[in-house]
Amino acid sequence: MGHSMNDENNEFTLIEWLRRQLPDHPQVPLGIGDDAAIVSPVGNCLLATDMLLEGRHFTFPPATPKLAGRKALAVNLSDIAAMGGTPVGCLVSIACSSDRGQEFAKEVLLGIKELADEFQTAIVGGDTNTWDGPLIINVAVWGETGTEKPLLRSAAKPGDWILVTGTLGGSLQGKHLSFTPRLNEAKQLRQAANIHAMIDLSDGLSSDLPHILSESHCGAILEAAAIPISPAAQKSSDGRSPLEHALSDGEDFELLLTVSPEEGRKLLDHSPLSIPLTKIGEIQEAPGAFLKNSNGELTPLVSTGWRHTF
Amino acid sequence: MGHSMNDENNEFTLIEWLRRQLPDHPQVPLGIGDDAAIVSPVGNCLLATDMLLEGRHFTFPPATPKLAGRKALAVNLSDIAAMGGTPVGCLVSIACSSDRGQEFAKEVLLGIKELADEFQTAIVGGDTNTWDGPLIINVAVWGETGTEKPLLRSAAKPGDWILVTGTLGGSLQGKHLSFTPRLNEAKQLRQAANIHAMIDLSDGLSSDLPHILSESHCGAILEAAAIPISPAAQKSSDGRSPLEHALSDGEDFELLLTVSPEEGRKLLDHSPLSIPLTKIGEIQEAPGAFLKNSNGELTPLVSTGWRHTF
Repeated sequence: MGHSMNDENNEFTLIEWLRRQLPDHPQVPLGIGDDAAIVSPVGNCLLATDMLLEGRHFTFPPATPKLAGRKALAVNLSDIAAMGGTPVGCLVSIACSSDRGQEFAKEVLLGIKELADEFQTAIVGGDTNTWDGPLIINVAVWGETGTEKPLLRSAAKPGDWILVTGTLGGSLQGKHLSFTPRLNEAKQLRQAANIHAMIDLSDGLSSDLPHILSESHCGAILEAAAIPISPAAQKSSDGRSPLEHALSDGEDFELLLTVSPEEGRKLLDHSPLSIPLTKIGEIQEAPGAFLKNSNGELTPLVSTGWRHTF
Repeated sequence: MGHSMNDENNEFTLIEWLRRQLPDHPQVPLGIGDDAAIVSPVGNCLLATDMLLEGRHFTFPPATPKLAGRKALAVNLSDIAAMGGTPVGCLVSIACSSDRGQEFAKEVLLGIKELADEFQTAIVGGDTNTWDGPLIINVAVWGETGTEKPLLRSAAKPGDWILVTGTLGGSLQGKHLSFTPRLNEAKQLRQAANIHAMIDLSDGLSSDLPHILSESHCGAILEAAAIPISPAAQKSSDGRSPLEHALSDGEDFELLLTVSPEEGRKLLDHSPLSIPLTKIGEIQEAPGAFLKNSNGELTPLVSTGWRHTF
């Protein structure tokens, strides 16, 4: 990439090393090695990007260089999953302290490559930088939905059931470094039913559900007792309840989707997934997000998720 | 982008602000606001990415937030230019210290947006992060070459003339923050002549020419007296000669291209450019890059450009 992967001379071996690791890909006529990669997208293209910062999105330990690289791709694949798409390729940029040496950087790239291989995602280019700061990893990913429509945040309808995959909360105790992006699950769900809206839970249920509500111009009522709480959140002893963790903790990277009641019934009766699939509430015509407790009382759902000031 | 542009609540206003600034684009059915953008590429696609780090690729001052943002897109557009392509869209990730406030981050994004507008490049998504470190900006760009072939580093032929746009050296004295990516010039050149290989000079002539030579399996002889030296390099008083600056300084972001002698003659006699276009040497069958002085003596061209240890 010009001023990038193969132009900083002493980094050249690192890039050549990566280039030699990479298999051919039918949609990548020209990968790493020129000013830009050449790719052959099929139909509409999905594009997403995420930047991960050491000290904020991961720390060493418990992260390893490989897990940090893996996470940087995984969060992007989660975005492609949330659109109901299939990943095709990615671009990788890293900034790494020279003190850590080339083996460290190679481990980061290997962590990306192993997950890329698992989901048939080509690494088509990137940019490596050395500096004296923390590790920075940026991944930009593209994917496709073939002949199917992308699943948007804006497609929820009043009366829809709200479903969620997996269990929620406590991800920062470990899952955030090793989660499986729900690409296969998204595919299985859309093969089994007509999905309306979908999003991945990156900031926490109470923060991400409102994105669907605002884009779809509707509201929602969640059943407190129905929310699937992860073992990590159940064991939490920081004074916040397991439910609070499940509502607020970020980085679950599970899928939240809405479907008609008929389709929802079908999915719950014959779930196509090998992980939990749970109905947690319903979409309402009236705006606002509410939590219903076991007495039937409604309280406003407050967005208390992963949050950063600017 | 899921865990990204519009999910960090206190950053939401920044993203909404950016989203409202952006015009519609015919190849972007869905821009900022969902887990991924949806784009409609035409034919083959060019993809490139670059990460810029405060303290390494720019410092404040002389950079301003706007110039830093502008540069982050410009270096990527330069890669698209070097492939003979037209940019279509980009993804932007930034990490910005919260101490600097939202106005600072807006300025960075405005710097990107103004250059994006100038070259009809859509901003389709991104990721904003706050941390307590220096400013990081990553841009990933995609472009296209329409019905024309991309111009590769691997297409130089023995006997080709080596041409360069503009003047070289001394970019770090200012040009690197305000250069115009040579998109229009690349288009004018390929309309006027059959270009073989092309690359943008990001690491310095002596570092970038070898990329063409190794990818094309050939060598080159440059004429020392022919190399166009920038006014900034001519005024340099650091003990290195103006020629050394022109050969070694990084970040010229000019185009280096090879053409047959007939096409080269045509281009020089009737240059389509409003900036200098200069023949600086010829491609040889024998490997190696050499510099010929006024006495006709050859010395090996040493890659002394922009370089970072890993």
